[in-house]
Amino acid sequence: MKKNPKFAIVLAGCGVYDGAEIHEATLTMLAIAANGGTYEIFAPNINQHHVINHITGQEMPESRNVLVESARIARGKIQDLDAFDASLFDALMLPGGFGVAKNLSNFAFKGANQEVLPSLEKAIIDMYKAKKPIGALCISPAIVVGVLKGATVTIGQDAETAQYIESMGSHHELTNHGEVIVDKHFNLATTPCYMLDATILDIEQGATQVVKAVLNMIM
Amino acid sequence: MKKNPKFAIVLAGCGVYDGAEIHEATLTMLAIAANGGTYEIFAPNINQHHVINHITGQEMPESRNVLVESARIARGKIQDLDAFDASLFDALMLPGGFGVAKNLSNFAFKGANQEVLPSLEKAIIDMYKAKKPIGALCISPAIVVGVLKGATVTIGQDAETAQYIESMGSHHELTNHGEVIVDKHFNLATTPCYMLDATILDIEQGATQVVKAVLNMIM
Repeated sequence: MKKNPKFAIVLAGCGVYDGAEIHEATLTMLAIAANGGTYEIFAPNINQHHVINHITGQEMPESRNVLVESARIARGKIQDLDAFDASLFDALMLPGGFGVAKNLSNFAFKGANQEVLPSLEKAIIDMYKAKKPIGALCISPAIVVGVLKGATVTIGQDAETAQYIESMGSHHELTNHGEVIVDKHFNLATTPCYMLDATILDIEQGATQVVKAVLNMIM
Repeated sequence: MKKNPKFAIVLAGCGVYDGAEIHEATLTMLAIAANGGTYEIFAPNINQHHVINHITGQEMPESRNVLVESARIARGKIQDLDAFDASLFDALMLPGGFGVAKNLSNFAFKGANQEVLPSLEKAIIDMYKAKKPIGALCISPAIVVGVLKGATVTIGQDAETAQYIESMGSHHELTNHGEVIVDKHFNLATTPCYMLDATILDIEQGATQVVKAVLNMIM
């Protein structure tokens, strides 16, 4: 295994309902560090699709920027996703949260007809072409297969999302907590995390297992 | 040790510069769950002191509510701190972040002359009277000693904050990553976390050690 592998983590805001899922993002960072890696954090400099009150679930009449809000999770150390250079990293990680399907894609609204944000699409393609692995948690695999058509992934057991993945020309496998599906052609490792009814211990397990699977694919 | 001890966690928003520190909050939850406990999350239903852009450090011209923003870390499962009932919990945990010193107190502005938010003051006093332990991370110990005068705590090695603690009639002890100071009279365990220049592994270690110290004090 490569010494001190360098990960890029892409965030989609700050909060499960309109941004990046905070526990998945934090525990991805922890899993990388605990397994000898380092990481840099990226997010797109765009407005969020919307802002959700995380108590009521209702939309709030304000606008927030994905890069600025993601910086809360990153403690200010964050870069514009437009500046991502695949040649500088060994692996790419995508924690989940609805923001991935609302801000980094419009999967939440268009399902299998989603359009993936160009800067994320480019990051995924550049990693794939360089044969560098990608790890995706929670809903993120459904966005990755909007770019990597034909990949085998998991988002857990949600039938509707699994059907969208199949209808985009990819393949879905059912999984439970902490299980990881590895697609060796696409160098892609996926795990369900909060797409299942999960505790924070399940998220720690899922993040650890998907990071380990990604590490195993780093050449 | 009591079976399935029940923790209350108090949050101060969502983001290190104006709210709760996200990694400390998340890793406190993880440490509680990993050590056999359960938790419920509380925050006050008040406006934040201000909103900080976490990239630039500049104040943003908007207002946010501490309870609503804390709900991002809690994934919506959160209660008003006014409703906290010490008789229902075995321990109280206070992760850090500047929000603790800006929203739950005015320590960031008034130092040793701070006024602690009445709902937090009541929670701390009720736990102390019931001889139930409190765990405090990062800057939070400096707010706790605004209530529990005479306690021995640590916030790591920051000389100015340590001096404020001493001038409030309490005692500060220097610590490094993962070290915990236990005050057996006040049933109070404290650890520095991001008050030191820390990695996420240091935060995991600090959260784990302070949760274990609190568990040891649960009767």
